[in-house]
Amino acid sequence: MTKSALQIARAAYQPKVPAALKGAVKAVEGAYTQSVADQDEVKKLFPNTYGMPVVTFEKTSSPKAMPAINAGVILSGGQAPGGHNVIAGIFDGLKSLNKDSRLFGFILGPGGLVDHNYMELTADIIDEYRNTGGFDMIGSGRTKLEAKEQFDKGLEILKELDIKALVIIGGDDSNTNACVLAEYYKAIGAGVQVIGCPKTIDGDLKNEQIETSFGFDTACKVYSEVIGNIQRDCNSARKYWHFIKLMGRSASHIALECALQTQPNVCIVSEEVEAKNMSLDDVITQVAEVVAKRAANGDNFGTVLIPEGLVEFIPAMKRLIAELSDFLAHHEDEFKLIKRSEQRNYIISKLTKENSEIYASLPEGVARQLTLDRDPHGNVQVSLIETEKLLAEMVGTRLAEWKKEGKYVGKFAAQVHFFGYEGRCAAPSNYDADYCYSLGYTASCLIASGKTGYMSSVRNTTAPADQWIAGGVPITMMMNMEKRHGEMKPVIQKALVKLDGAPFKTFAAKREGWALTTDYVYPGPIQYFGPTEVCDEPTKTLQLELAK
Amino acid sequence: MTKSALQIARAAYQPKVPAALKGAVKAVEGAYTQSVADQDEVKKLFPNTYGMPVVTFEKTSSPKAMPAINAGVILSGGQAPGGHNVIAGIFDGLKSLNKDSRLFGFILGPGGLVDHNYMELTADIIDEYRNTGGFDMIGSGRTKLEAKEQFDKGLEILKELDIKALVIIGGDDSNTNACVLAEYYKAIGAGVQVIGCPKTIDGDLKNEQIETSFGFDTACKVYSEVIGNIQRDCNSARKYWHFIKLMGRSASHIALECALQTQPNVCIVSEEVEAKNMSLDDVITQVAEVVAKRAANGDNFGTVLIPEGLVEFIPAMKRLIAELSDFLAHHEDEFKLIKRSEQRNYIISKLTKENSEIYASLPEGVARQLTLDRDPHGNVQVSLIETEKLLAEMVGTRLAEWKKEGKYVGKFAAQVHFFGYEGRCAAPSNYDADYCYSLGYTASCLIASGKTGYMSSVRNTTAPADQWIAGGVPITMMMNMEKRHGEMKPVIQKALVKLDGAPFKTFAAKREGWALTTDYVYPGPIQYFGPTEVCDEPTKTLQLELAK
Repeated sequence: MTKSALQIARAAYQPKVPAALKGAVKAVEGAYTQSVADQDEVKKLFPNTYGMPVVTFEKTSSPKAMPAINAGVILSGGQAPGGHNVIAGIFDGLKSLNKDSRLFGFILGPGGLVDHNYMELTADIIDEYRNTGGFDMIGSGRTKLEAKEQFDKGLEILKELDIKALVIIGGDDSNTNACVLAEYYKAIGAGVQVIGCPKTIDGDLKNEQIETSFGFDTACKVYSEVIGNIQRDCNSARKYWHFIKLMGRSASHIALECALQTQPNVCIVSEEVEAKNMSLDDVITQVAEVVAKRAANGDNFGTVLIPEGLVEFIPAMKRLIAELSDFLAHHEDEFKLIKRSEQRNYIISKLTKENSEIYASLPEGVARQLTLDRDPHGNVQVSLIETEKLLAEMVGTRLAEWKKEGKYVGKFAAQVHFFGYEGRCAAPSNYDADYCYSLGYTASCLIASGKTGYMSSVRNTTAPADQWIAGGVPITMMMNMEKRHGEMKPVIQKALVKLDGAPFKTFAAKREGWALTTDYVYPGPIQYFGPTEVCDEPTKTLQLELAK
Repeated sequence: MTKSALQIARAAYQPKVPAALKGAVKAVEGAYTQSVADQDEVKKLFPNTYGMPVVTFEKTSSPKAMPAINAGVILSGGQAPGGHNVIAGIFDGLKSLNKDSRLFGFILGPGGLVDHNYMELTADIIDEYRNTGGFDMIGSGRTKLEAKEQFDKGLEILKELDIKALVIIGGDDSNTNACVLAEYYKAIGAGVQVIGCPKTIDGDLKNEQIETSFGFDTACKVYSEVIGNIQRDCNSARKYWHFIKLMGRSASHIALECALQTQPNVCIVSEEVEAKNMSLDDVITQVAEVVAKRAANGDNFGTVLIPEGLVEFIPAMKRLIAELSDFLAHHEDEFKLIKRSEQRNYIISKLTKENSEIYASLPEGVARQLTLDRDPHGNVQVSLIETEKLLAEMVGTRLAEWKKEGKYVGKFAAQVHFFGYEGRCAAPSNYDADYCYSLGYTASCLIASGKTGYMSSVRNTTAPADQWIAGGVPITMMMNMEKRHGEMKPVIQKALVKLDGAPFKTFAAKREGWALTTDYVYPGPIQYFGPTEVCDEPTKTLQLELAK
């Protein structure tokens, strides 16, 4: 591995940790817990891991000797900055308890457990990856650990390696599955503890117990850096509207956080669009109105932030897509025979009136994409829609209409951007480096305390790291029952943007000002060596949420 | 202006300057100069500013008193990181010579001079913009200063404001025009000096006298940061090929520098494509071969860097576009009558055999773009071609063919990116902050020495700033005669990537290794406060060029 100068300098960074983790700890148990909803159903499904108490780790002056232990670790799902530091934290934690403890990494995600694909993570390997981005130390994967056969197959290799505890680093689904696995291993007396760690740049794995998922901080800062740069360009050239789509499967936390950091002229929040039952037309009108108002002030430039999941939050678009998927699934052969140039009119003639009108209003490229790019099951692939282009094009069309009507005088030229892969593997910010390392270290304490079915938890993270609180939360506590593929399943509630939460309310109070005046903020790149107010500030979202 | 924490901290940075500029200086003149070519023609066009000596500034212990002077400054053309520091350097330089000197900024580019649109740049304003990115202090514009009427109109406001010297910050064209203006004002005895400053992120304004243009360093570092992040994602997920297009109108300096910084699997260099007379098909084959070889090793992922200007460097594509522009210009009405679905076949039937075949090989979207998106003169707009998608799609098609033939076994999925606006207005790196400030300060010394028709020059910039050499180069020295719009014009030679230069040769020697092994480098974000090897390193291009 050829290393950059920054990577070499950054390797020496010693993550900051909660004061309690600086020496021996004892687990202090709180009250017994309940799941957030559907208590009876969840309890029935998790007889061995339901209702356990929240745990907090506190300093102790009488450390217990701990036998050497072998542990395993898995990275599950999409990359997020700081994954390597979680692993380093687990490693250092285990070694501090007993220098003969060993750590194994399962390769390319949960599939590595099932396929018995693993490597031992020695000090040399760990040191190579401290404070780096990416998941390349052991790779990640999207295999879902759901079936008994997988659990049993996994247990074979765990037994073979004498692994007594497994840490699964993942999002809401992976942590749900970690808990199912914990329950199963406990039920059969397998002697393997399972601990989860909250990861996802999307920021949608958080609740009363978990302040934030790791990676959200770094990813948002990278996106805000480039958004800020684009805004400065926008404000210097004064001739383009930049439509910027931001990753984040469904929740709009990333777009909202970036808006709070950079103060764009428009930021669309999917959750608000859904709550207000807005149509695509409404969204277009809203953006076009800001463009027109700015143009009236002589400002023919601006920025629009768009959450990746937007289309799926527009109720009318959801209905169109559902009908389209259904129709095409049942008329595949007929559709194939239609001449390319006639396909659009064919679809328009077949859909119900409401959906037909929406389809007819879509730009040609998007309309075509909706009928052509379908997944193996024939479903329309919403994620492939270039929402940033869709909006830019439709806003342009709307403005051209208004110009004819004399309602708009100005020039409109658009540039489009999509940021996602740029932020998922950035080297972690100080916040994520510290938070991840602490999460990993805490996971080792949960292992030492014999816990299973817990998620590693580090709280109070807007305070200096010294005052952070390390502990564990029973995963069942975050669960409720939801329909998945037609079946009721116990799952961790996904956290969408709350319209009555402090981050959204702060944004909502300021957005009109940001729309008309040009008050862009340029956060600049993540800094690792500067003054603390530059290097250590957590996200605006977290600061606002914890200040409440 | 709401300021980010980084912006506030960075405002205090004091740019490093050449030792000579730390006190009073004297101008030391070298030998008289010649233009790089076409000496007789250039000399005839610049009777008053041709052949002047190169100037170097050295420390002096006997400073001369300098009367207060009013100067003007113009930002011309595309944004580049560090423009504000050039202005700050001019300001501080003028004030150090006489505290009653004043600086005026012409607004939104050269048009501000012609339209008498200006503002005085006071200490408060300057301080607000120190070490920031963007050109928003006074804005920039693309008006070309070429006509006598513009010069005369400009002179009116210069006289009115008693401005004795004008600094034009721009690329090769703007500096050429600065020299024409200098010659004109000298010829008519206007009493206004004109000084140029070398700006462009493209890196194509450089020669024996000018080491680099400002902004290239910062822009390449921003692009390399995000390319590195994408590469780490690529290497973690191991399932995508990322096709990344990089800004840079014609020269491939940016793509090459980013390749040297990040070590991608493929980097296309337009100048090589042209020199080898490669066809689009050749380029596709070359990329597809790397994909196939990596797939044979089990690596179905990788990165490809693509310079923005590529298509115009493929001789066969240039011929196609020329014929297409010409044909459509003469058959506009006929073409409009063709049904949309028949347009492609119509074009194929009308072009000469060679061009017809190439056109037929293009993906539908690109083929359509070539006929639809034309400029007001009817010309095909090459800059709108999404080259990154074009290559990704055509490589995919090629691989599918090879798969059928049994020549390729693997999976190919592509993601595309285009980076440009992300880097043009980033806050300048230490290198650009220092270089720009020094260029501006040197410009003030050129003014004080009574020079006109000079470009501010700071050399030896791979050494510590203390050892940098400040001076001025007669702009005519960089000129030759070139055909522009059918007429022979004196212009500064544009610097393309030299295939026998050290940067390209270094890349060429390493690229096979980078293609097959995965040896990505992750440079990370620009750092402003860390160790010098992290914060102060100039571009690889400059290091290799100056090491020769």
